[in-house]
Amino acid sequence: MGAMVPKGKIFSGMRPTGRLHIGHLSVLQNWIRLQQDYDCVFSIVDWHALTTSFEDVQAMQTNIREIALDWLSAGLDPEISPISVQSQVKEHAELHLLFSMMTPVSWLERCPTYKDQLQQFGLKGKEINMYGFLGYPMLMTADILLYLADHVPVGQDQLPHIEISREVARRFNFLYQVELFPEPQAILSEVPLLPGIDGLKMSKSYGNDIALSASAAELKEKVRLMVTDPARVRKTDPGNPEVCIVHTYHKIYSTAEEVAEIEEGCRNATIGCVACKQALAAKLENMLGPIRERREALLAHPGRIDEILAEGSRQARQKAAVTMNLTREAMGVRGVLD
Amino acid sequence: MGAMVPKGKIFSGMRPTGRLHIGHLSVLQNWIRLQQDYDCVFSIVDWHALTTSFEDVQAMQTNIREIALDWLSAGLDPEISPISVQSQVKEHAELHLLFSMMTPVSWLERCPTYKDQLQQFGLKGKEINMYGFLGYPMLMTADILLYLADHVPVGQDQLPHIEISREVARRFNFLYQVELFPEPQAILSEVPLLPGIDGLKMSKSYGNDIALSASAAELKEKVRLMVTDPARVRKTDPGNPEVCIVHTYHKIYSTAEEVAEIEEGCRNATIGCVACKQALAAKLENMLGPIRERREALLAHPGRIDEILAEGSRQARQKAAVTMNLTREAMGVRGVLD
Repeated sequence: MGAMVPKGKIFSGMRPTGRLHIGHLSVLQNWIRLQQDYDCVFSIVDWHALTTSFEDVQAMQTNIREIALDWLSAGLDPEISPISVQSQVKEHAELHLLFSMMTPVSWLERCPTYKDQLQQFGLKGKEINMYGFLGYPMLMTADILLYLADHVPVGQDQLPHIEISREVARRFNFLYQVELFPEPQAILSEVPLLPGIDGLKMSKSYGNDIALSASAAELKEKVRLMVTDPARVRKTDPGNPEVCIVHTYHKIYSTAEEVAEIEEGCRNATIGCVACKQALAAKLENMLGPIRERREALLAHPGRIDEILAEGSRQARQKAAVTMNLTREAMGVRGVLD
Repeated sequence: MGAMVPKGKIFSGMRPTGRLHIGHLSVLQNWIRLQQDYDCVFSIVDWHALTTSFEDVQAMQTNIREIALDWLSAGLDPEISPISVQSQVKEHAELHLLFSMMTPVSWLERCPTYKDQLQQFGLKGKEINMYGFLGYPMLMTADILLYLADHVPVGQDQLPHIEISREVARRFNFLYQVELFPEPQAILSEVPLLPGIDGLKMSKSYGNDIALSASAAELKEKVRLMVTDPARVRKTDPGNPEVCIVHTYHKIYSTAEEVAEIEEGCRNATIGCVACKQALAAKLENMLGPIRERREALLAHPGRIDEILAEGSRQARQKAAVTMNLTREAMGVRGVLD
């Protein structure tokens, strides 16, 4: 019998910016796997949403419930890990403020995503050069370190932010001569790049997405509209799978054997686009069917989502309190009043 | 009978950086007057102290109690207005974070005190170019607007910060179409410039100050050490009051008549330095005596200071909660969980 090794800790979150689509599913499936092996905290990071959408907040509460429903329908289990709302755990704001005192502005200014995003939003005529936007990687650092998370599942684009969280952890431990914060490591997961049904980037705002909450009929309709080889006009024309979105999807959702078969059938015109789409729709329905069932079960209990979020936020606050007491003590802002 | 006009609201605070000296007394006396006419909240802003002293936090808790004792001894009345500790009112951190989302970095970078202070600290070999230092006027804005304060007693050097608080209030009200935050006005009070006993700037760190908590003996000794006209060696030498620190003090603490008499006596050598200093020491003792008595009464009840700060912080949180609910609602981060 080996010695008990304490579980690693994970924090991860998403901004509540609207319903998720099937492109997000692999991230959620990754979380569901990680729930088994790590102490996880998942958070709907509504304060982060403000860094780029502070002017457009009407839908925030709807979006929070919608993303929670998406997570839970996908199978994330609130009995295993808390599912919280960032703004319900004020400690995120306090730790962010405390870290701000010892984090050089230059670390944030030099973050490669900063200038890049400023420019991208600028091109869309959106001014986001706010103090909070500059500090966004530090808010993320506070999110992670608040739970002493040593691992963070992220995409490649988030690596510079994880690097900042490591630097802040190191600097804090050094300045206050404590061994409080771990230096979080990224868990890079391979996320297949799923295009929208028109071949562009999948996005709710383009209308080219397949929502995680799609009904069976919606799903079929989306697959029906998928762009195929435009040169293949009749079923008897040989097709080129390389330019066909349906084929791109098959490569993700069908077996290698099936893909080979479909590819050959397309090239020599023995399988038509309609049949090819039906096969894909069936695959996707297999995937979304159980998700839809869980969604309906949740929706049958009004108030259940709010209960789960309230309980998850309560558990998150409990974990956060421990870290905050140690942080305040190290920085001299914990008195007998605490 | 006139109509009831609601009282104006005031927020003011000081950083806990060590015992106060008699140079601070006029600020406190001003606060004591304002307590009568305004709804005031006073705060020991320990988080602000971190903006420039994040590396040196050992004395923070001692400093908090010391400054509280100084305030109360000077006559600030916790029965009239809450005396709170900033870090005990987490809403300051939350409002700071929310404001950060909509405050342009450029407003903070352009603040005249920013570059100026960076340079001053830089000359002392102290690196304070931290994110939190850049955001300091916004933390101050959150402090003020958290209590919907429409007036802030400040010195001339703080005017740019009050201007930022007005801009943030205006921008918030405009963005979210609410009439929530007032645009705070500065109350500029004339503070006589009191030199240290050696004629340099009065500062605890130079040892040239007269502490608000000075004992009768310490006070006498400090006055005895005050620098007088170096050309007046013997009592029979005529002196030049213009270069005498004792005289500078008399101009602040003695009546115009007494000042004229002393000036003449010095110039024609009828009053010696010893007598002149004794007269000043008596004046200062008249001022510090009652402060010392209140201090001793407070110290006779160990735990009293902590009780006052705990109760003041509780009252401050209560006031802050009202503002935060409205702020969260305006920014979309208040859900059914609240």
